[in-house]
Amino acid sequence: LPVPGLVVIGGVAAGLSCATRARRIDPALPITVLEKGPVVSYGACGLPYFVEGQVRRLDDLIVYTPAYFATERNIDVRTSAEVVEIRHSSRQVVLASGERLPYEKLAIATGARPDLSAIEGSQLPNVFALQTLDDAARLLQFIKVSGPRRAVVIGAGYIGLEAAEALRTHGIAVELRTATGDVLGRRDSRLTAILEKHLATFGVQLRCSMPVREIVENCGELVVIATGVKPNVELAVSAGVTLGRTGAIAVTDRMETNLPSVYAAGDCSETRHLVTRRDVYIPLGTTANKTGRIAGANAAGRRESFPGVVGTSIVRVCGLGVALTGLSESQAKLEHFNPVRVTVDAKDKAGYFRGRPTSVELVADKGSGVLIGGMVIGEEGVAGRINVIATALTNRMTVEEFQELDLAYAPPYATVWDPLLIAAQQLSKLLH
Amino acid sequence: LPVPGLVVIGGVAAGLSCATRARRIDPALPITVLEKGPVVSYGACGLPYFVEGQVRRLDDLIVYTPAYFATERNIDVRTSAEVVEIRHSSRQVVLASGERLPYEKLAIATGARPDLSAIEGSQLPNVFALQTLDDAARLLQFIKVSGPRRAVVIGAGYIGLEAAEALRTHGIAVELRTATGDVLGRRDSRLTAILEKHLATFGVQLRCSMPVREIVENCGELVVIATGVKPNVELAVSAGVTLGRTGAIAVTDRMETNLPSVYAAGDCSETRHLVTRRDVYIPLGTTANKTGRIAGANAAGRRESFPGVVGTSIVRVCGLGVALTGLSESQAKLEHFNPVRVTVDAKDKAGYFRGRPTSVELVADKGSGVLIGGMVIGEEGVAGRINVIATALTNRMTVEEFQELDLAYAPPYATVWDPLLIAAQQLSKLLH
Repeated sequence: LPVPGLVVIGGVAAGLSCATRARRIDPALPITVLEKGPVVSYGACGLPYFVEGQVRRLDDLIVYTPAYFATERNIDVRTSAEVVEIRHSSRQVVLASGERLPYEKLAIATGARPDLSAIEGSQLPNVFALQTLDDAARLLQFIKVSGPRRAVVIGAGYIGLEAAEALRTHGIAVELRTATGDVLGRRDSRLTAILEKHLATFGVQLRCSMPVREIVENCGELVVIATGVKPNVELAVSAGVTLGRTGAIAVTDRMETNLPSVYAAGDCSETRHLVTRRDVYIPLGTTANKTGRIAGANAAGRRESFPGVVGTSIVRVCGLGVALTGLSESQAKLEHFNPVRVTVDAKDKAGYFRGRPTSVELVADKGSGVLIGGMVIGEEGVAGRINVIATALTNRMTVEEFQELDLAYAPPYATVWDPLLIAAQQLSKLLH
Repeated sequence: LPVPGLVVIGGVAAGLSCATRARRIDPALPITVLEKGPVVSYGACGLPYFVEGQVRRLDDLIVYTPAYFATERNIDVRTSAEVVEIRHSSRQVVLASGERLPYEKLAIATGARPDLSAIEGSQLPNVFALQTLDDAARLLQFIKVSGPRRAVVIGAGYIGLEAAEALRTHGIAVELRTATGDVLGRRDSRLTAILEKHLATFGVQLRCSMPVREIVENCGELVVIATGVKPNVELAVSAGVTLGRTGAIAVTDRMETNLPSVYAAGDCSETRHLVTRRDVYIPLGTTANKTGRIAGANAAGRRESFPGVVGTSIVRVCGLGVALTGLSESQAKLEHFNPVRVTVDAKDKAGYFRGRPTSVELVADKGSGVLIGGMVIGEEGVAGRINVIATALTNRMTVEEFQELDLAYAPPYATVWDPLLIAAQQLSKLLH
């Protein structure tokens, strides 16, 4: 048997961030990454852009190869290496080939998979998910060969929205169905109405509260299932790893599981929501990279912790940037806040620089005056503005503090009162 | 005599924000705004863009007229109404016309003026400042009539840089001179080098450490003086108002001067720097609006305070966005910090979305690990990223905290590791 060191199960975002960080901290630690799929280190977030043609070659989405990790990082990255069992009592993992690998520290970064369980017919040849490079390649090939004119996309999360836009670039009429009256999991009827109208102008029909339980062959010429993902936890559960309330792996802020020397990170694990202070399951590449890094640091002997997330995301919806952070008003009520909300429609820069409309929503808790959520919709400056709100949420800023922020102004870039500050001023009035 | 109420001296950013806020709080308060110039409520920040042609008409820079304030706000705004004396013992202001106006509360928002004192020859017909609408009109007229082919711009602050770019749009070769080895008052040789190179490719020659003490007629066909401004404090000083260490009016966080019921706001007053905790003079339109609002609220009976600024600014330099906040490394040393700095050159979004180079600099204090400054240079996303740093400075975030920020990611808008987070990770290494 080889010398025990760090074994990482999973070779995408969290797993490789973990391995890379551990290597930087400990040059001598044996590190092995076991990936069950054929490739590692690919940017799944780019798959819709491959389907729409913005990404020319799937190889462009692969950041690093196993050879790179071997020669540049001294990390043994194995593909097609599926772990079928974790024998924690003897500190070994068992591969599908029967091979056993010892570990001193183990990091579980098994990711997530599309949640197809509630939909029958998902194995039909005209039905696709969009998680792996192979999924994207098959979907694009199907479009080119079969030339579908109509498609149904099931699920209006970010992948569903991105897939709908990608299909439109091929001239396909898209019906976007969601089981709830909801898009982006936000429980925000105003957002849903905005996107319904915007999508319609681009040939995408949003149909809410239309759950799909079975796909039959005449359901549409093409179906994309984007109903969200569920964490790959079965391997961990078999080994005795505890799950949290969300069904993903429960971890400490050091990314430790309940088993000693066993860490978990990325899309298979929970994280802490800094606004609600509750554990949540929000699988995103950014968080996977961050939590992987922390797991790697701790596995290599450091003591580092991951504070959590505030639920920030951004998605391009037929050219429109839609960014969220924290809680919507409805979500805040469910979390027992007493939310107040404002929406401001403003220009994103001086009129004589052809300022474009941008919409800013802020949500605060009436009792404390603390900001608890925000949304920004627009063409430019959307990421920057949502990130300012996210930074404020992380610091538990009050609306009073937020409205005095010293934000940058010059006519080519902003308005003298930034829409963020206008929104905060209006929200402040509702708090008094 | 009229009923005493709130009298505001100055009708641009701070003065009008003050009057408007006071009106919103107290519908019955008599409010008079006295502006010595011919117009109120103009966007001085837009003047360079009028010279370059982006703003077509000077009227486009006028936001509101006195008639608007009379009919919509019930505020008496008078132009060409110069206050020549504040008689605080009898609570009166005296106008140049001899008219006396009583006040119960007084707000001094007298602004600032171009600092021409150190330069002889500033009255020559080919020499211009760029503060008022009239300055801009005269400069553009001179360019059209005289067709200068060469110009000297004195001062490399934001107005000097914007003026240089505006002159280039008229095909004028520009020499940009600064008395120190410095641009944007940042004491940052790396920034100076970057801008020197960038400006050169646009036909602007940056010549540092070339103080100009006298302009003679053959000095250049056209000269623009942009050596900064000094606060208009003479009227206040005569009335017994105390100045701070910077030479601007000293104020409390409620924008109170040393005289009871007398407030000051905007470019005539100091403000608190939240990183150094010292009083500074950083005259900017954004701060003028904010401090004016606070002065107006307190004059109308509220108790509100202005926390201060972190020194955020952004300027477009021949197409390149340059944004600053907090302290540069050199400034931090002068303020007795022990600064460490990193600079990261990265892409602002995914490569397949034609990500463009962006440069992020972060400065932290080695002892505390707290972020104390930052700079972002690039084409897009510059304002958003500097605003995130500004928000972090306001909250005294450590580098450790900053690197875990939950920033938005999607390929059309960002990279999975935002350049801000990459910079923080690298800076973190220097702190350990």
